[in-house]
Amino acid sequence: MHKRPLILVTNDDGINAPGIRALIAVMNTIGDVVVVAPNSPQSGMGHAITLNSTLYSEEVRLDNGPQKEFSCSGTPADCVKLGIRELLDSPPDLCVSGINHGSNASINVIYSGTMSAAIEAGIEGIPAIGFSLLDYNWDANFEACKSYVKTITQNVLEHGLPNGVVLNVNIPNIPKKEIKGIKVCRQAKANWVEEFDKRKTPQGKDYYWLTGKFVNLDGGKDTDEWALEKGYISLVPVQFDLTAHHFLKDLNNWNL
Amino acid sequence: MHKRPLILVTNDDGINAPGIRALIAVMNTIGDVVVVAPNSPQSGMGHAITLNSTLYSEEVRLDNGPQKEFSCSGTPADCVKLGIRELLDSPPDLCVSGINHGSNASINVIYSGTMSAAIEAGIEGIPAIGFSLLDYNWDANFEACKSYVKTITQNVLEHGLPNGVVLNVNIPNIPKKEIKGIKVCRQAKANWVEEFDKRKTPQGKDYYWLTGKFVNLDGGKDTDEWALEKGYISLVPVQFDLTAHHFLKDLNNWNL
Repeated sequence: MHKRPLILVTNDDGINAPGIRALIAVMNTIGDVVVVAPNSPQSGMGHAITLNSTLYSEEVRLDNGPQKEFSCSGTPADCVKLGIRELLDSPPDLCVSGINHGSNASINVIYSGTMSAAIEAGIEGIPAIGFSLLDYNWDANFEACKSYVKTITQNVLEHGLPNGVVLNVNIPNIPKKEIKGIKVCRQAKANWVEEFDKRKTPQGKDYYWLTGKFVNLDGGKDTDEWALEKGYISLVPVQFDLTAHHFLKDLNNWNL
Repeated sequence: MHKRPLILVTNDDGINAPGIRALIAVMNTIGDVVVVAPNSPQSGMGHAITLNSTLYSEEVRLDNGPQKEFSCSGTPADCVKLGIRELLDSPPDLCVSGINHGSNASINVIYSGTMSAAIEAGIEGIPAIGFSLLDYNWDANFEACKSYVKTITQNVLEHGLPNGVVLNVNIPNIPKKEIKGIKVCRQAKANWVEEFDKRKTPQGKDYYWLTGKFVNLDGGKDTDEWALEKGYISLVPVQFDLTAHHFLKDLNNWNL
């Protein structure tokens, strides 16, 4: 019999979020689980790391599961670094992040703490998956996701992932019986059109809230946004070599 | 005669940093400059955005140049969003970020606030360049960079950049006469090997400082790290479609 895989679990909504509790429950059925997750919500933190202040972590017990858990004062990327280097006894076989409360499809991958944790693990050579459910509510229902999360995780453990690639999984917020399956996709070319809500403090000083509207002008039927809209779970392989290789040749013709 | 381009300048070391002062000086020779930059250092902030708190900005005057300047309480990505949507009278023709105090070559692009600002502008459809000097010191000497910063900027204004691509420019910390020129490169496959410096608070609680060693195992002679080591300025085209297109076909063969 195979040894049970060691699985590092993290997220960006904080260690108390229902989404990470659902992910831990699934991972406990697959392997030995260590949780290292932020002690407070870190949404929109992108790939931030803590360089100029100190990091704290403490072992905690938040439910009756068999997993070991550490709550950490840092960002999701910090949690992965600290987990791998300090808190785990040996390098994990897999890192999973989420289940995020809200979409990380399309351009959201750039701003996502959930995906930054998966990418950080990928940089360290650990196969990694970020999971997100398209429901921003704290009391989102993660039950419908669970079998799909398990299937995808088992596939990653079986097939592995090439160096430099992690997975971004987004799950539509619909009843389980309406989910049509899992679709391999590319990241849709969409973006946020920001609107700043400008207000005045009681003292008369201007301040802003960042708000915005998501605009998808990508008509492709091979994108994550298309798949999610049609009732599929989207699965996008994500790389962290950001080189725009297709533009190298043109650049070499510039007068530099 | 052409209209002077409108140039948005930002950074992640803060609006008072010598690096952004040098960049503003160069941009004033090319176009009309508006600065929107963080009011405090934001290094290591990755692509963080401010979702759960408010943003402040105020017009400031920090030197005798002709530029308009706004100091902002947010991250570099926030500065670009706020600049484009609220503070500038019309969309900029170009966004430049930096000059960063320290390298953003190789995997550092992922953690970089400087590059997140350039990428944010790129997402908004604005041609954008991030500049970094390989000297972390506050009193780094930016004089040697200036003519190269100008040449690259003029090339971008002349040729434009394709949708979805921004430039990551790194400059070696050597005297100007030793700089061999500008080299178009790919991002080296290198990473940080973290070491956490574990200490105890006066009250006996464990805490950590994140430290680490940069390790480049990429032997290619077409990488940014190679170019910088050989005395070239590295120029890497960076994309924010993170899809690992080469792995889509394999994934479709999984049992999902």
